[in-house]
Amino acid sequence: MTSALPDGPPPAARGTRAGSDNARRLVLVATEAFSERGYHATTTRDIAAAAGMSPAALYVHFPSKVALLFAIARNGHEQALDLVRHAVASSTDPERRVRRIVLDFVAWHARQHRIARVVQYELHALPEPELGVVRDLRRRTEQLMRDVITEGVAAGRFQVPDVATAARAVLSLGIDVARWYTSQTRPSPDELGRQYADLVLRMLR
Amino acid sequence: MTSALPDGPPPAARGTRAGSDNARRLVLVATEAFSERGYHATTTRDIAAAAGMSPAALYVHFPSKVALLFAIARNGHEQALDLVRHAVASSTDPERRVRRIVLDFVAWHARQHRIARVVQYELHALPEPELGVVRDLRRRTEQLMRDVITEGVAAGRFQVPDVATAARAVLSLGIDVARWYTSQTRPSPDELGRQYADLVLRMLR
Repeated sequence: MTSALPDGPPPAARGTRAGSDNARRLVLVATEAFSERGYHATTTRDIAAAAGMSPAALYVHFPSKVALLFAIARNGHEQALDLVRHAVASSTDPERRVRRIVLDFVAWHARQHRIARVVQYELHALPEPELGVVRDLRRRTEQLMRDVITEGVAAGRFQVPDVATAARAVLSLGIDVARWYTSQTRPSPDELGRQYADLVLRMLR
Repeated sequence: MTSALPDGPPPAARGTRAGSDNARRLVLVATEAFSERGYHATTTRDIAAAAGMSPAALYVHFPSKVALLFAIARNGHEQALDLVRHAVASSTDPERRVRRIVLDFVAWHARQHRIARVVQYELHALPEPELGVVRDLRRRTEQLMRDVITEGVAAGRFQVPDVATAARAVLSLGIDVARWYTSQTRPSPDELGRQYADLVLRMLR
């Protein structure tokens, strides 16, 4: 396996490319370590060892531990934003949109609970401007959720006292799944998504 | 200020007494440090310094950093369980009970978001048997929530596809408040509690 160098990302994204096999492996191993022991308790040496690489080989891909955390956090937030975007694009009906968002958002947080834990609970370790990039992704996800609820209210399908609070509650339900879900948890990610989608729709109607 | 020794707690609770002023100050300072930087990134030396004490004076009250974390986690979980118990005792009507639980549980997680963050997100650092003590408190809180919903279903006031999932969703909404709530957040803890109680009751009916 060759250890390919990232091909010249812009300065703001330095060390955040996870294109090669080795870089992807480092991201996987770091996600597991950060989610189990926390970011601060994990050293780059631990991560390199778990990936079967030398610390020097790690630094070829990620110049720092923060760069690894940023790669995980940005990628996780991009995945969450993408699935909400796709859910919105899947229908023009407000209830179908909300059902799809909750189904996919909840199932993702259950299935990817390790990534989601790092993404949600280790953010405080990110410096600026990296934290700003992640905050912007969060804002866009929240805005999409608010827009969908606002349209449902305008169409007379939803009735909520406060759109911002309702949007926050819906996303919050999904995000918190990552805290308690494990690979032994029942119901399955998809079934949990369906049950939560039912609860959320009752909450908004 | 004298540094009073804890008066002989049982072995299982060693170092978890926070009775004296100094011990309470250490708990406050440790809560702030753990919630801001995470448990692993904080040293007992940091905590002692922030409390204006020597490391030796800290060890008089807490024999280890884990003992401090356990004191915070146990106390926080006891507070959460107590407020749910009081809410249940406040009425025999299922809807009033749920409203009171959500109001108080959400407001507590908003107001005490620092304590709640440590309580919720730093648990993985607790060893056994301390973790078992905390798990037992959580189980009792969840059981109360399930009982209240079950009674509401039996009385024909609630209608949920799955009581365990509904109970989890209700508590989850409250717990996740600690992740995003700050002292600058609006609405106020009590107003957020009211809004969430409305949403939850719609979810259960």
